Amino acid sequence: MTPSQPPIVLMTDFGLQDSYVGIMKGVIAGISPLTPVIDLTHCITAQHIPQGAFLLGSAAPYFPEGTIFVAIVDPGVGTGRKAIVLETEKQIFIAPDNGLLSLVMKKQQVKACYAITNTSYMLPVQSATFHGRDIFSPVAAHLANGAELATVGNTVSPESCIRIEFPENSTSDGGRSWKGVILYCDIYGNLVTSFTGEMLVEGEKPAGIRMENGRILPLHHTYGDVAEGEALAYRGSSGFLEIAVRNGNASQSLGLKTGDRITFLRTPGHWG
Amino acid sequence: MTPSQPPIVLMTDFGLQDSYVGIMKGVIAGISPLTPVIDLTHCITAQHIPQGAFLLGSAAPYFPEGTIFVAIVDPGVGTGRKAIVLETEKQIFIAPDNGLLSLVMKKQQVKACYAITNTSYMLPVQSATFHGRDIFSPVAAHLANGAELATVGNTVSPESCIRIEFPENSTSDGGRSWKGVILYCDIYGNLVTSFTGEMLVEGEKPAGIRMENGRILPLHHTYGDVAEGEALAYRGSSGFLEIAVRNGNASQSLGLKTGDRITFLRTPGHWG
Amino acid sequence: MTPSQPPIVLMTDFGLQDSYVGIMKGVIAGISPLTPVIDLTHCITAQHIPQGAFLLGSAAPYFPEGTIFVAIVDPGVGTGRKAIVLETEKQIFIAPDNGLLSLVMKKQQVKACYAITNTSYMLPVQSATFHGRDIFSPVAAHLANGAELATVGNTVSPESCIRIEFPENSTSDGGRSWKGVILYCDIYGNLVTSFTGEMLVEGEKPAGIRMENGRILPLHHTYGDVAEGEALAYRGSSGFLEIAVRNGNASQSLGLKTGDRITFLRTPGHWG
Repeated sequence: MTPSQPPIVLMTDFGLQDSYVGIMKGVIAGISPLTPVIDLTHCITAQHIPQGAFLLGSAAPYFPEGTIFVAIVDPGVGTGRKAIVLETEKQIFIAPDNGLLSLVMKKQQVKACYAITNTSYMLPVQSATFHGRDIFSPVAAHLANGAELATVGNTVSPESCIRIEFPENSTSDGGRSWKGVILYCDIYGNLVTSFTGEMLVEGEKPAGIRMENGRILPLHHTYGDVAEGEALAYRGSSGFLEIAVRNGNASQSLGLKTGDRITFLRTPGHWG
Repeated sequence: MTPSQPPIVLMTDFGLQDSYVGIMKGVIAGISPLTPVIDLTHCITAQHIPQGAFLLGSAAPYFPEGTIFVAIVDPGVGTGRKAIVLETEKQIFIAPDNGLLSLVMKKQQVKACYAITNTSYMLPVQSATFHGRDIFSPVAAHLANGAELATVGNTVSPESCIRIEFPENSTSDGGRSWKGVILYCDIYGNLVTSFTGEMLVEGEKPAGIRMENGRILPLHHTYGDVAEGEALAYRGSSGFLEIAVRNGNASQSLGLKTGDRITFLRTPGHWG
Repeated sequence: MTPSQPPIVLMTDFGLQDSYVGIMKGVIAGISPLTPVIDLTHCITAQHIPQGAFLLGSAAPYFPEGTIFVAIVDPGVGTGRKAIVLETEKQIFIAPDNGLLSLVMKKQQVKACYAITNTSYMLPVQSATFHGRDIFSPVAAHLANGAELATVGNTVSPESCIRIEFPENSTSDGGRSWKGVILYCDIYGNLVTSFTGEMLVEGEKPAGIRMENGRILPLHHTYGDVAEGEALAYRGSSGFLEIAVRNGNASQSLGLKTGDRITFLRTPGHWG
């Protein structure tokens, strides 16, 4: 337990109204009082595993090596679903085995995975409904205190863990156009697409992103390249292409939401 | 001031939009910079003392020994109401004397109680409306720094402090049925009742919880025991019996809210 | 980097739903893991620079010397607007150069100001849209680690920074009445006016604050001086005169909102 030990990071769909998150921090403080605790967000849409998987996988690279993530979007709490600890080349992830770690497993190299069964790391009484307090938080705190990962329970094959497929973009014309979807809508109405920034080729300017209704949103570098109220697509801070309206709400203005289908048009032009 | 000093825990009805909570943390950081500060919740319904009392009393056992709680739901701020420091066998609680510590006093053994009058622990100027900043936070920070409790002001009798009665469940048929109420509704619409888990007897299955309209909600172990959309009662993570709808909102579906009367039916059956 | 190093304080309009704030904390934890991070608020009305300037300038005095504030309300992100580090006699402020530091510059003595250009303090790749993560947070963390302020970039004249004017109250009758505005409305509907507490003279009771519709709100010491549901004006905890309704919502009851014009009537009376 060095003074600069990595943080425990919490992501849940518990919201901020109730005391659930505060209680988890109390449990952690009782076991590992020197570990800093950071909230990633607690406002995942209730039980929305894909949204949680996206936000966790996108955010993890910005946290230090050794960070211990506790991710809870858990419609199956109290049923027989496994609770797992995933070790990647960089960090540690504790979550129900329901797909919540799908993007992390896709983006980071997995080293090992364990099913949590060691009750000595749990609170003495485990409720059927609040594993965040009774299992996930105390396990995280014991790991922060230096407990060996392998002591939480048996090794499981990472391949056996439940994964949700992140939509694969598909092309049928040799890469001139790609079909994809809206992955996430943030509080401003900005829309994250399934198209990655790597699809942009230096020196080429794609034609844009086409909505289902045929409208094409032009690619630009940043908001400032269009007038107020105008829509654009751009390489977002998440690494994915995003759709926004300058000083406006793209989701509302364009009628787009998570899951909607869109097409990336690469007809080459000059990117400037 | 050891490195693993217990945290200061904040619970208020200040909400998260304004800067009030942030300012309190600034005051604490200026006096006791090494003390971790944890938010229990700041979304108590405005001025709702019973709700705050319930959440504080339910959450406190999950925090470490020596934790200093600052609890502020304070419709009487600026009037003559006392501000108190309560010492229990386990923790310290700072609050207005208005009933907010009622459940804590019922659940934890009280050691001493003091009325805060020592202005040397307060900010130099005390406003009439923001004692969270001017009195409660700096007092908490000085106590975290090691100030003796008895230096905050005169001892007061714990019996003299204002208490709200938590509804006592009552029976008129020798324990076959008990009348109680809904204590709390969480963000998911789950309903905490005044019936405690201790009312469940190993090996016996109660008939359920009856609503005012005659409908009986069956007792189960967890959500997973009923189909999606079905209502159930179960021993909740708070230690009280709770009412929920699997993957739904019980408050909305059943039309139940805080304060509504309900009946626990113990007609024995087999609990399986 | 002493154990009691001052905190980094974050104020943004990013809201609490998304993971943006959590990611900023991850970046800070990677660079300066021992620095405490405090949230002032993340619920500034989107792109509302005057509101952010008011809350920041009002809150800063309650934080310790040496505190590093990161303030982000940044409609111009991705355009050519400067990012600045402002050093005052007491604290350090990092923000876009768009007026967000106006009240701080008015209330605290400015020592120096720098335009941030040193890319070695930024993340390796800087997005066009999330400077909070890529520039502001890492710069703050490097300064918390002890980096010299002058190493962030060239000195700029504080006078050259963009300022928004906080409404100056004006009088045309020798001080018997002053025209001003509503500066801020908090979550309770309490209204902060542009009139400062210093306008109250010991021993004199002003006639009150007049709304545009002619209604006069009487000055009192605190809520407790009026009956439930009644409106009053009083010296607020912010140091400004405020308007409230006891146990009610003044903004809703009185139909007042940010920017509305009001008049302070000083016709002397007895203040009691």
